Amino acid sequence: MKSFHPLDKVRVVLSHPSHPGNIGATARAMKTMGLNSLYLVNPRVFPDKDAEARAAGAWDILNSARVCVDLDEALSGTVLAAAVTARPRDLSHEVFDARRGARELLGHARQYPVALVFGTEMSGLTTLEVSKCQIVVHIPANPDYSSLNLASAVQVMAYELRMGLPELELLPPVAGIAADFNDIELLYRHLERVSVSSGFLDPLEPKRLMQRMRRLFARARLEKEEVNILRGILSAVEKRIQSQITSYK
Amino acid sequence: MKSFHPLDKVRVVLSHPSHPGNIGATARAMKTMGLNSLYLVNPRVFPDKDAEARAAGAWDILNSARVCVDLDEALSGTVLAAAVTARPRDLSHEVFDARRGARELLGHARQYPVALVFGTEMSGLTTLEVSKCQIVVHIPANPDYSSLNLASAVQVMAYELRMGLPELELLPPVAGIAADFNDIELLYRHLERVSVSSGFLDPLEPKRLMQRMRRLFARARLEKEEVNILRGILSAVEKRIQSQITSYK
Repeated sequence: MKSFHPLDKVRVVLSHPSHPGNIGATARAMKTMGLNSLYLVNPRVFPDKDAEARAAGAWDILNSARVCVDLDEALSGTVLAAAVTARPRDLSHEVFDARRGARELLGHARQYPVALVFGTEMSGLTTLEVSKCQIVVHIPANPDYSSLNLASAVQVMAYELRMGLPELELLPPVAGIAADFNDIELLYRHLERVSVSSGFLDPLEPKRLMQRMRRLFARARLEKEEVNILRGILSAVEKRIQSQITSYK
Repeated sequence: MKSFHPLDKVRVVLSHPSHPGNIGATARAMKTMGLNSLYLVNPRVFPDKDAEARAAGAWDILNSARVCVDLDEALSGTVLAAAVTARPRDLSHEVFDARRGARELLGHARQYPVALVFGTEMSGLTTLEVSKCQIVVHIPANPDYSSLNLASAVQVMAYELRMGLPELELLPPVAGIAADFNDIELLYRHLERVSVSSGFLDPLEPKRLMQRMRRLFARARLEKEEVNILRGILSAVEKRIQSQITSYK
């Protein structure tokens, strides 16, 4: 990457977009506000003529768009991912409005890749997809008609990111080295394994344990060293439990 | 408590105040902004004539002040405690300026007790005291002369709390039931015990492990149910390790 402008570090991730026209319109919306990093998770049709037509000159963004097989691939390396959603959920993460969400993302984008994640046109993001994000961003809308077009939602968020730039200097620096998506996913797998081997979690009836843990650690914005410490404790515990199982044989 | 006004839920905690005059001036500063809950941790002299004189009519606050033996007692039952400090520290918690810190406290004070913690006049808060708080609040000041009087610091924070009241309706509600100081201290003790029994932590050379864990979970603003889950996992792990030790006998 040539420049270190915070907007360069913001990925716009469209999960399973159905209409190629929306992909083009998204590229255009991004370019108007200075964003350039587009990730497409399993798009129904891409590349496509409709996408090119609606991009109206933002072809550079369209041409450099990365097509991913799943959300994990699109979020790899990010330290903060925001699920943009219209409906608040039961066990949802921290909810920010568009303005405060943009500020939260920008604060991290000074140093690390971050992501704005948009769901499919008809049904939005799945619960599993939201659980891979650390925050939820809500675009305020008319409660009687809140159905924002996909590219319009991208436009509002891109606008708020641009508007937030002058405030960046006032934000406190991010302390420590942030853990990224991949580190944190490994932590969750490790925690789940120990929860099972200790007998706390029944893998046949996991309930919402891991969802709760994801929600907790999402709020904390984990640092690399913290993940290392937590995994160190888990490894020590695992070794003890393992040696016990062996001693029973 | 008769009323549920958020300012009623904000404790002003003075740790080891040396000058009784400052206690009186603090009571007065609090009353001017509508605060009324004063906690004194091990004051050098109290009650005292100087305190009464400087309180200038805020005697109700002085008379109902609670004298505590240590900071744990003063923070008992709170869900968020802010260490007001002039110096940023090495492994410090999240740092807020006075305005944003007041907002953070008010958001929780709609439902739960919170605390503003001020250190002793000469040397401020100790590292141990700061580690019992979840956030650090910094009052911006002239870098060439940042020595705010204790009661003046209380005045600025009380003012910001009052100024933040109209914004309260815009803040998102606090999700879940917040864990309080006592729950969280028990979690730390449990985590430390398992870190030792698993062999991860050498109690003779603890380094900064628990300080790091305090910092992590402070940022997360733990909920009661999350503490219960974490302690459940720790208990399950502990039982396994214990039965292993027994099986070796």
